[in-house]
Amino acid sequence: MTAHYDALETRDPEVRERDMLGRLPAQVAHARARAPAFAKTLAAIDPAAVTSRAALAQLPVMRKGELLELQKSARPFGGLAASGFGEIARVFASPGPIYEPEGRAPDWWRLGRALFAAGFRRGDLVHNCFSYHFTPAGSMLETGAHAVGCTVFPGGTGQTEQQVQAIADLAPAGYVGTPSFLRIILEKADELGVTLPSLVKALVSGEAFPPSLRDALAARGIQGYQVYATADLGNIAYETPAREGLVVDEGVLVEIVRPGTGTPVPDGEVGEVVVTALANADYPLIRFGTGDLSAVLPGRSPCGRTNLRIRGWMGRADQTTKVKGMFVHPSQVAAIVARHAEIAKARLVVDNPDQNDRMILHVEPRPGQAVPVEAVVATIRDVTKLRGELQVRALGELPNDGKVIDDTRTYA
Amino acid sequence: MTAHYDALETRDPEVRERDMLGRLPAQVAHARARAPAFAKTLAAIDPAAVTSRAALAQLPVMRKGELLELQKSARPFGGLAASGFGEIARVFASPGPIYEPEGRAPDWWRLGRALFAAGFRRGDLVHNCFSYHFTPAGSMLETGAHAVGCTVFPGGTGQTEQQVQAIADLAPAGYVGTPSFLRIILEKADELGVTLPSLVKALVSGEAFPPSLRDALAARGIQGYQVYATADLGNIAYETPAREGLVVDEGVLVEIVRPGTGTPVPDGEVGEVVVTALANADYPLIRFGTGDLSAVLPGRSPCGRTNLRIRGWMGRADQTTKVKGMFVHPSQVAAIVARHAEIAKARLVVDNPDQNDRMILHVEPRPGQAVPVEAVVATIRDVTKLRGELQVRALGELPNDGKVIDDTRTYA
Repeated sequence: MTAHYDALETRDPEVRERDMLGRLPAQVAHARARAPAFAKTLAAIDPAAVTSRAALAQLPVMRKGELLELQKSARPFGGLAASGFGEIARVFASPGPIYEPEGRAPDWWRLGRALFAAGFRRGDLVHNCFSYHFTPAGSMLETGAHAVGCTVFPGGTGQTEQQVQAIADLAPAGYVGTPSFLRIILEKADELGVTLPSLVKALVSGEAFPPSLRDALAARGIQGYQVYATADLGNIAYETPAREGLVVDEGVLVEIVRPGTGTPVPDGEVGEVVVTALANADYPLIRFGTGDLSAVLPGRSPCGRTNLRIRGWMGRADQTTKVKGMFVHPSQVAAIVARHAEIAKARLVVDNPDQNDRMILHVEPRPGQAVPVEAVVATIRDVTKLRGELQVRALGELPNDGKVIDDTRTYA
Repeated sequence: MTAHYDALETRDPEVRERDMLGRLPAQVAHARARAPAFAKTLAAIDPAAVTSRAALAQLPVMRKGELLELQKSARPFGGLAASGFGEIARVFASPGPIYEPEGRAPDWWRLGRALFAAGFRRGDLVHNCFSYHFTPAGSMLETGAHAVGCTVFPGGTGQTEQQVQAIADLAPAGYVGTPSFLRIILEKADELGVTLPSLVKALVSGEAFPPSLRDALAARGIQGYQVYATADLGNIAYETPAREGLVVDEGVLVEIVRPGTGTPVPDGEVGEVVVTALANADYPLIRFGTGDLSAVLPGRSPCGRTNLRIRGWMGRADQTTKVKGMFVHPSQVAAIVARHAEIAKARLVVDNPDQNDRMILHVEPRPGQAVPVEAVVATIRDVTKLRGELQVRALGELPNDGKVIDDTRTYA
């Protein structure tokens, strides 16, 4: 059995990096030429000069949280898409509503690679329990399954008894959907006294896939793998039989940045997943801030795939909060840090002793530097319009969890 | 604006008939070679000889009602499909459950032609409110819309408020789904004070489309058309701007037969719609009895389409009933008629005066012939194992409604 979907997965990492960076200028130019919102945000950029990660890091991050307003002012895609109705195959609505395009190219969401890594092969019947209505997950997995050469049963959500009957009758090799719904289906089958021996593989997504559930599935003969995909970008990273983090998809360039900024963090540090879609002509997202937290997992996967690995979903990066009725954004914390070169890293802790909101900025100084306390306190007030205290910590003392604003208030 | 989907629609009817009949031998041979159930039922047939409607009428009718048992004995498709998992794109489950394949060819269900006739054009956004889950209607209309060059929003069923919002935000040109759900959406929009001016066309199916609803839609600026399609065959016949019956699709050969038999009725008489799929390599249904009643509408459509027209759905053909606890099938009525050449047409009327079941066979004699009453009464008992009376009617006196068994019993 072939171990890899294609030769891209096992490329020399330097060859991949050169290839990806080599595609950046054309994709940046395409976004600027065809997507009005990028024409504006990238107006000052020379696409031809975006040939390194350092140059890419200079471009503005377009954050998921901006989509709602952008789309309200320019239906349907806020000026971020390069293709319109008639050119694209489908349009979806995620909660918000945020609208997402799907182009006409086969396996447009690039889920085929994730399905292959989870063991799906040509000729398999796939029972697809992601919804096809409004949101794109159903279509994502279906178009990926078609690329692998599978036939799909569109089970959608709910109707648990009928799902059990269809699986019993049609004998699919695998399941795709949320892990919790697979558990519900298996429990319903137990209750009905129906065995589902054909099911031996699963690709799950959309929620946490705890090791306990993974092991419970394995005990029933089902090998479950997860994929990290979003409605804007499709496949970002996928689990492989090595079971060491998630390997980044070959169609995207992934950066991990300090939340609220566009600045990449050192490898291994937790930050926001920022993705540039290199293989997508219809929705050429450049430095799209997913709002998800993850971190690079150093080293290479033993499965032979040589691409960057990340740890998977580690929470939400958007830590915007309200203090004494005023919004405080991660980007404001970044602005404070930017004004003081002595600060290496900062974390704004919000608590409420005696039910009064309090802000304390914890900072790690750069090696050998002293933080000017009075000046920073003034900057806090200047940037946030709120009073805040400062606490200087030792180097490496702040936890590596991607949190820029840590809201610990309790309401008794 | 082009008035027709392609040149096939306006062919000289004789050219079409020659083309269709010319494709019969290969399709019959294909079904026999690749679909085990047809290999059995068509074993005695020489495919090369099936070159006329008369020859086709000699082949057995495979009825919808037989699918459940056939599929139970041979998953998934009862031996009627020529392609299996891996070759087909999707498999669906209709109530029963009856499983249906969808092949990989573009617009496999041939709904593009119906969408075009309803006014859908390249570049249109289509709001699709057929379900994509389990049953094939969602996929049917979506793949048809893609063939026309439209973009599709997969709305599915339910979530009426969100449907209104998506239509208001995305401004689709047209709706596809059941007519009643379109009414519900429009009423919800009224209730919310939202106008949906972009909606100007609709293709509806799945239930009756009464003229009152058609007019109510037109009053809102929405031109609604209907299509007659099934989960086994896809597009069978579709409405056109001429609004005179439904024009038969170019991919199927339609016969109208006496319910319970394989015998075509004279043009204009109501009978069961029997379809041979000429353009389908994956599911080559030969003389598939839909169980639906319709009739040929004589003449040609003023819209320029030259194919056969039918009246649309006129009820269910399967009139099997129980008399004194015994099943009586339309095929038994046909068996009685077959034994007496003097009978042109028959209708078994079941009533229950004094709450006692009674059967009366009404017959029309062939011109100039006398019906042998005693012999026919004996045949009734022989075939049905039940006592029945005979009533000889004048030629043309029996109603033209496709009813072979008319169950008029009332239970007070």
